[in-house]
Amino acid sequence: VHQFVRNLITEWRRLDLPFRAATVVIAVSGGADSVSLLLALSELRERKKLDHRFVAAHFNHGLRDGASDADEQFVRDLATKLNVELAVGKASSLSANPGNLEQNARRARYDFLRQTAANVGALAVVTGHTINDQAETVLMNLLRGSGPDGLAGMRPVRPLDLEEAETDLRGNPNTILVRPLLTWARRVDTEAYCHHLEVDYRYDTMNEDTAFKRVRIRKVLLPLLEDFNPRIVESLGNTATLMQNLTESADDRPRRTGNGGLPLADLRTASKNEVNDIIRQWLRECRGSTRQLQLKHIQAIERLVFSTKSGRTAELPGGTVTKRGGSLVYKENKVEN
Amino acid sequence: VHQFVRNLITEWRRLDLPFRAATVVIAVSGGADSVSLLLALSELRERKKLDHRFVAAHFNHGLRDGASDADEQFVRDLATKLNVELAVGKASSLSANPGNLEQNARRARYDFLRQTAANVGALAVVTGHTINDQAETVLMNLLRGSGPDGLAGMRPVRPLDLEEAETDLRGNPNTILVRPLLTWARRVDTEAYCHHLEVDYRYDTMNEDTAFKRVRIRKVLLPLLEDFNPRIVESLGNTATLMQNLTESADDRPRRTGNGGLPLADLRTASKNEVNDIIRQWLRECRGSTRQLQLKHIQAIERLVFSTKSGRTAELPGGTVTKRGGSLVYKENKVEN
Repeated sequence: VHQFVRNLITEWRRLDLPFRAATVVIAVSGGADSVSLLLALSELRERKKLDHRFVAAHFNHGLRDGASDADEQFVRDLATKLNVELAVGKASSLSANPGNLEQNARRARYDFLRQTAANVGALAVVTGHTINDQAETVLMNLLRGSGPDGLAGMRPVRPLDLEEAETDLRGNPNTILVRPLLTWARRVDTEAYCHHLEVDYRYDTMNEDTAFKRVRIRKVLLPLLEDFNPRIVESLGNTATLMQNLTESADDRPRRTGNGGLPLADLRTASKNEVNDIIRQWLRECRGSTRQLQLKHIQAIERLVFSTKSGRTAELPGGTVTKRGGSLVYKENKVEN
Repeated sequence: VHQFVRNLITEWRRLDLPFRAATVVIAVSGGADSVSLLLALSELRERKKLDHRFVAAHFNHGLRDGASDADEQFVRDLATKLNVELAVGKASSLSANPGNLEQNARRARYDFLRQTAANVGALAVVTGHTINDQAETVLMNLLRGSGPDGLAGMRPVRPLDLEEAETDLRGNPNTILVRPLLTWARRVDTEAYCHHLEVDYRYDTMNEDTAFKRVRIRKVLLPLLEDFNPRIVESLGNTATLMQNLTESADDRPRRTGNGGLPLADLRTASKNEVNDIIRQWLRECRGSTRQLQLKHIQAIERLVFSTKSGRTAELPGGTVTKRGGSLVYKENKVEN
């Protein structure tokens, strides 16, 4: 058995995932990462190590004339060859959606994955994110000035629907998103396993376009960091895991005012000047400083405190403040992939 | 009053430092950072905002023929002009000390500061570390694959003697090390304040020598990161503060096995195979993975468990395991400045 497959089943066990009788959606773009994941899961099924219903899910973004359709055809052929069910989604209204191209594409893809998971009653959606994706995510968040949450990067297992999901589409709230390559597989490992099986994969030319920050991090920043530490990708992956361990155990303890919520009652009984001080002090604890905070931001938060509408949010540089459950809650902006 | 001085007294208040009747040692190399600190503290004394006995402390490393002595003379003249007491130390046996030049120099300098603090009964030793030093420290630790502790960088206030101090020299255990420029002053701010007062400062040519990793981070890496985020220095400083808040509040809670100690009793009652598994699982939680761990490392830890000598330490890639108080304690390697 190839080392890649052995590592995958070891990680599957470590993550406490079931070995049989579940439905598992596999997100397959056609790139080496997701193709290697599909191939390895398929091999584990053939070897009777896993006995699940697998459903490959491919989303055709329709972004690159011809190439997107060729990607779709490639995944169709591969699924047929491996005897794996396939669901295909197509972007409908991306061109009508201005704003961040990457983020809109990501949202449409996750909406499709959620819909597919709901359709087939999936226990889990698995994706081919590698430790390289993790390293890039940690760096992107570090460059944005993220704190602990951003430096924790992506988690290998999380609920598919996050509390802050940007969509109204909800499936089974217990469906999980699993990234079984995240903590150990380098991009070159996924390519090597495909080569070993003599299976081709597709290249996404967007992965070469340095107009995207993530691509510049991959192509410019990471090679420079490798001059300092040849194993920087693994190091950043480890850092993310350590941060996850720390923030998870911090979640166990009673929340402190600073990092948790700020009770509205404390503010409503304070004088106008005290309110300003309390909010600034709280934001300093949450954000590490009060720099870039302007009077208008503090005023927006004061309106939250004294307004009667609930669920309102104030945008700050680097994060948002939301009124929830009788408290103000700060959440820093961060990216996943 | 210049903004630099106003920021310094604001930070002094935020850090809950006393305003009068203490003895404060000011570490002065002669560079812009420490000269600006000496000038600003001196100005605050003249303006009766602070009423302390100030003792400047300069350490002559004797590393650069002539230049080190000229630095010393520069600091002597400045102290005389400002009417501040001065203590000067000289390196004695650096050449007899092989190994890491930077680290040996740092150790000799801190020994001298500890000795000076003990001689004058200082409450605090203050240094001129800026937010640029903090950003460089965070990056150095990130590049080494540090976890939360390294990403927290330097703290603005800490005991002068750390538990793991490399020296036997101990003064008053309550003496604190304070870095009052750390969270807000950029290097350019220290230079600008010196220019404003028309006071010169010295340049350390070692700050230009890219043989030192810290200099490469300053000269090569940070300028590239500024292409991604023009305020990267402030962002990294904020990240350090957020990490300090998180790890401090994590320190409040009862320690979990993973991030705290591993009780020796658990190991001594386990079978040989179980011991191996428990140690690996514990190290995975502490280090984020078991990669780079070899059999010899596990065996060294097993010797700690079953040996009768106490206080023994095993070196691992990236950290050390020490037997202390009936437990094994993992500590990751990290740098300060």
